[in-house]
Amino acid sequence: MQSLGGRSLDWVDGAVLMVDQTRLPDSYETLRIESVPDMVAAIRRLSVRGAPAIGVAGALGVVLAMQAHGTSGEGLDSAVAFLRQARPTAVNLARMVDRVAALAGQGIDRALREALRIRDEEIAASISMGEYGADLVLELVNKPSARAMTICNTGGLATIERGTALAVIQTLHERGSLAEALALETRPLLQGARLTTWELGRMGAPHRLLVDSAAPFMLARRQADVVLTGADRVAANGDTANKIGTFSLALGARNAGVPFIVVAPESTLDFETPDGQSIPIEDRDGDEVVSVRTATTAPENTRAANPAFDITPVSLITAIVTDRRVVRLDRGDNLDSVPLGELRSPHAEL
Amino acid sequence: MQSLGGRSLDWVDGAVLMVDQTRLPDSYETLRIESVPDMVAAIRRLSVRGAPAIGVAGALGVVLAMQAHGTSGEGLDSAVAFLRQARPTAVNLARMVDRVAALAGQGIDRALREALRIRDEEIAASISMGEYGADLVLELVNKPSARAMTICNTGGLATIERGTALAVIQTLHERGSLAEALALETRPLLQGARLTTWELGRMGAPHRLLVDSAAPFMLARRQADVVLTGADRVAANGDTANKIGTFSLALGARNAGVPFIVVAPESTLDFETPDGQSIPIEDRDGDEVVSVRTATTAPENTRAANPAFDITPVSLITAIVTDRRVVRLDRGDNLDSVPLGELRSPHAEL
Repeated sequence: MQSLGGRSLDWVDGAVLMVDQTRLPDSYETLRIESVPDMVAAIRRLSVRGAPAIGVAGALGVVLAMQAHGTSGEGLDSAVAFLRQARPTAVNLARMVDRVAALAGQGIDRALREALRIRDEEIAASISMGEYGADLVLELVNKPSARAMTICNTGGLATIERGTALAVIQTLHERGSLAEALALETRPLLQGARLTTWELGRMGAPHRLLVDSAAPFMLARRQADVVLTGADRVAANGDTANKIGTFSLALGARNAGVPFIVVAPESTLDFETPDGQSIPIEDRDGDEVVSVRTATTAPENTRAANPAFDITPVSLITAIVTDRRVVRLDRGDNLDSVPLGELRSPHAEL
Repeated sequence: MQSLGGRSLDWVDGAVLMVDQTRLPDSYETLRIESVPDMVAAIRRLSVRGAPAIGVAGALGVVLAMQAHGTSGEGLDSAVAFLRQARPTAVNLARMVDRVAALAGQGIDRALREALRIRDEEIAASISMGEYGADLVLELVNKPSARAMTICNTGGLATIERGTALAVIQTLHERGSLAEALALETRPLLQGARLTTWELGRMGAPHRLLVDSAAPFMLARRQADVVLTGADRVAANGDTANKIGTFSLALGARNAGVPFIVVAPESTLDFETPDGQSIPIEDRDGDEVVSVRTATTAPENTRAANPAFDITPVSLITAIVTDRRVVRLDRGDNLDSVPLGELRSPHAEL
């Protein structure tokens, strides 16, 4: 098996190599993706997932499209359009596809360079978000170590390395400032139970798992000091689309007076989408609800509603942490009022 | 297999016969329980569950104890104490055990008569709650038919027949006034996915299933007109202990301005418990979280927090519907201020 050296996906020998996240935590397997249809299928079945990671997958997917269809023409356009709409909610996918496709006319080497630059930017962003976020958490909780609750998977698997919200938790752990991480299992596809616990275990961080619906009660009982989540898209006004259950968690945090922090790279901010109402929400197949991995949970032919994301209104968000700044919504700041700061990363020359 | 004639449990030929709810919806099987240790085990593993149903199971369990240990003595006292604490949160269990045990000195026939009377009272209460609740829902939603969201299982399986919150939904359906029922799956043990959908299917009511964490977002998007839940214990001030996730659902209902109605028989009201803080919350084994039926969901040795219930503060509850009254908390009424009314049931002579 070819190695990814701890990354969730990468460009290896003329194709995309990725961890097959549908197989974790039972087995760690990699997929080699050589065509756009295979990439779209991998994105749709969530072999690769997480807004920054599918952004990089889309960027590299354009290079795969060019390998098949050249630097221009209907074939390329069609493949790029197919790739661009593999999933609708995360803004990174369409954005990064467009960014690389815009350079197609300059040849495949130039396109690949751009795609790899996007990959490196996301890695640097993860390091920087971890630093900004850990500083903010310790300031807000006003204790030497914090108990952090989080939903879905926002670690290295959701980006390329380290992650968004989970990068903050990892940075707290590396600083000796993490008392405990509380991971929501994240039904229906259990990214929290399967992937976040797996990543927390690998980093040696103390953690417990809970069912999603227990989170507001655990917060009311003061079992966590802060809630950290990622984002699939942050609208211009700060409304945030993220994994279904995030809104419920935000209501619970507000009820308990616990800070609710969204952690996302600048690449996930979408100033062309004015607010949450304008973000498309992906409705996925009801089969994901009536089954859990190998088990069925409901009588045959039970119908299900399965919105994959929800919208957390900006009014419930304490702060948005990016790789370049901390936007303190609780103090009246907004995405327009806070200028970009430094990238806090050893790769800051990017 | 002996028949229960649509009841969840009953006294048949000198023993307790019950539906084994852990096997639904895959198979409908009955268990014959002849001893207190077997009854305690059945209650603990949730073969029988739901506050009114475990109250009746406890009442009949005292008769089983008397069959083994006679009408008095240390053996009986010990068996009764064992039964009484099989589960801590629902008030019905201890209450109904005490009610029958108090008559032990009058002989086993008298005790059995009392236990069967408790059974019949719960059946009559379910019919009456359905009537009171359906009237209230149609008044509150001000439409000819309602879309009702509910959590856990509160149907005939949770009582003896018909149920609490689900009895209201059934009554709405029988009146032609149910547009749709939305059932939360209710992790970790999936009583909503396994049992509520099964009961809704048997009554021919239109329904869809959703993951628990989607409920607040579905409410914010106006996908339901009312939320109906049962209760394991209602404290004197109206604070309500119910299945984990109920509090989250109540926060979602309040956010959306959707009425949140607790449906419970008078037998579940506990005037000796002043408020929610005083209700014992059962913490169950973490294994329930890291597995779903036959599938495991997390890496080996993952620790989990697993509170089985939560507390919904009275401030989030629109009304409490019992078999004898409607307490409109939203209008400033409380459990002390509203007198008992008529039992709306063909068994009203009870």
